[in-house]
Amino acid sequence: MQNIQFYQDAFTAHLKGFTKHKEPASLYSPINYILQLGGKRLRPVLTLMTADIFGSDSKKALDAALSIEVFHNFSLVHDDIMDDAPLRRGHETVHEKWNLNTGILSGDAMLIMAYQLFENYESKTFQALAKLFSKTALEVCEGQQYDVDFEIRNDVAIAEYLKMIEYKTAVLVGAAMKMGAIVANASLEDQNSIYEFGKNLGIAFQLQDDYLDAFGDPKTFGKQVGGDIIENKKTYLYLKALEFSNESDRLQLNQLFSSNPEDLSAKINTSRQIFESSGSAEATKDAIQEYTHKAFSVLNTINISEDKKALLYDFGNNLMHRNV
Amino acid sequence: MQNIQFYQDAFTAHLKGFTKHKEPASLYSPINYILQLGGKRLRPVLTLMTADIFGSDSKKALDAALSIEVFHNFSLVHDDIMDDAPLRRGHETVHEKWNLNTGILSGDAMLIMAYQLFENYESKTFQALAKLFSKTALEVCEGQQYDVDFEIRNDVAIAEYLKMIEYKTAVLVGAAMKMGAIVANASLEDQNSIYEFGKNLGIAFQLQDDYLDAFGDPKTFGKQVGGDIIENKKTYLYLKALEFSNESDRLQLNQLFSSNPEDLSAKINTSRQIFESSGSAEATKDAIQEYTHKAFSVLNTINISEDKKALLYDFGNNLMHRNV
Repeated sequence: MQNIQFYQDAFTAHLKGFTKHKEPASLYSPINYILQLGGKRLRPVLTLMTADIFGSDSKKALDAALSIEVFHNFSLVHDDIMDDAPLRRGHETVHEKWNLNTGILSGDAMLIMAYQLFENYESKTFQALAKLFSKTALEVCEGQQYDVDFEIRNDVAIAEYLKMIEYKTAVLVGAAMKMGAIVANASLEDQNSIYEFGKNLGIAFQLQDDYLDAFGDPKTFGKQVGGDIIENKKTYLYLKALEFSNESDRLQLNQLFSSNPEDLSAKINTSRQIFESSGSAEATKDAIQEYTHKAFSVLNTINISEDKKALLYDFGNNLMHRNV
Repeated sequence: MQNIQFYQDAFTAHLKGFTKHKEPASLYSPINYILQLGGKRLRPVLTLMTADIFGSDSKKALDAALSIEVFHNFSLVHDDIMDDAPLRRGHETVHEKWNLNTGILSGDAMLIMAYQLFENYESKTFQALAKLFSKTALEVCEGQQYDVDFEIRNDVAIAEYLKMIEYKTAVLVGAAMKMGAIVANASLEDQNSIYEFGKNLGIAFQLQDDYLDAFGDPKTFGKQVGGDIIENKKTYLYLKALEFSNESDRLQLNQLFSSNPEDLSAKINTSRQIFESSGSAEATKDAIQEYTHKAFSVLNTINISEDKKALLYDFGNNLMHRNV
């Protein structure tokens, strides 16, 4: 087993070999651009680490890890178009730097290239990886569509919201880890267990993101605190507050989340007060705990040594102890 | 061997089973809509026919055929966004009937679903199909990008144009046939030969499309005759005319193709005159012949009976004897 930095470095070196100059440059330059913008490389690191945990040389998982990262960046390029986002990781988004058509077409090419990265594996592994990839990628599309649909709906149920974040975010974390297990020839049972570990941790992570967006420390939270409130996003905090509130709070929340007032800090503060007084903030913290616990309890069933379990446990704990 | 209608019917029935109601409807309805708009189903018919020719039950190739058709329609949905096209086969395009985001996301889902259609094949066939699919799909993206790039370039060489239509259109015809051969377990040599047959026929077909766009019979040519001239498209006819023309014709052609005049019929007629007087019309007909001949000459090398060769020959001849 190695530390995170080791996997990050191995991945970065592998990525460098991938982003070579190809023709037409107008198609491939945007791809190299977005892939080199950086980020924590969390998903590919999980693929490499999981391969290692199940007894494979993590090097064997580099192409699978890269596929996950290329797919993730494909989804960022297309999502940024859909959200009309000007910036990504502090730099211009692809459709801003180039144009809409380049964003669409370069994204399409990345989705195909993600599949090509499985071609170096022998046919049974190839098929297992590609099947998991397709299932996951389609769920990510469905999750994105649910997210879009929810924007204009006023009757989103908690269960629907949880399914949306599971599909949009969490399944890719599960798949990243399962791919490592597939490459390492782990048993089907262990493959599915590590998938559940990653998926539940992914849900917990996203719920924590919802929580931190409202209550995080502006100094350490990567995004603008209150951003979801400003954008009227129906997060777990918001939906739980609606469920728990009395009639007058519910009305006020509804009003706040269908407005774009000039005084943003008043909107943010009032929303936060209702999130707390309604018990939604506490319920969100409970849900984060619940999904983190679910992830950890799966760990016990996996056929790996205790020190490797401890490692996954530590990884999960570090991830979940951002500044709540 | 069966007639075209047989394959079309088998394909239509298979497609019907595919376009079931799935959730979220906002993602899958546009997919069902575009897939059911019809069209000649030329590519999937070629997959089924080729499987049959190489001794397989064509039913076995239905999923591969469907994958080709789903991919083709994916590319139409995204291309229609890029071209800002309001209509497709006489009906509203997906991004017109719904919106831009739906067009992007439903297209993405179709690309993934195309890969999933290979999952029922055993792993070696799966890998062969998916590899060919990825290579072809990426070339189609590259071809589309070259086409976009050429719009603002004034120095496009004939060889570049031929590569563009090969990638954008012809490789998918070759791949459709090769997939039939793969499913039928044909030898690698025969797989590659049938691919070359389809690809060269695809190039001939696209060159013929260029020719008919200027010189076709308005009653039988599916699109508006002169459409490429109106849109200043640098087709084979145009590029060859530039190559062959004297200085004054070249100047006039350059001027015509950088203008959007009110009197379209004058623009069309003058362009046609230059296409003929320069020898470009004749050279285009020669090129169509050349690629058709290339396709037919590959047929001789394939390890199938003479009557099956005759069938492919007839198919090619029927395709190439639209109203020139």
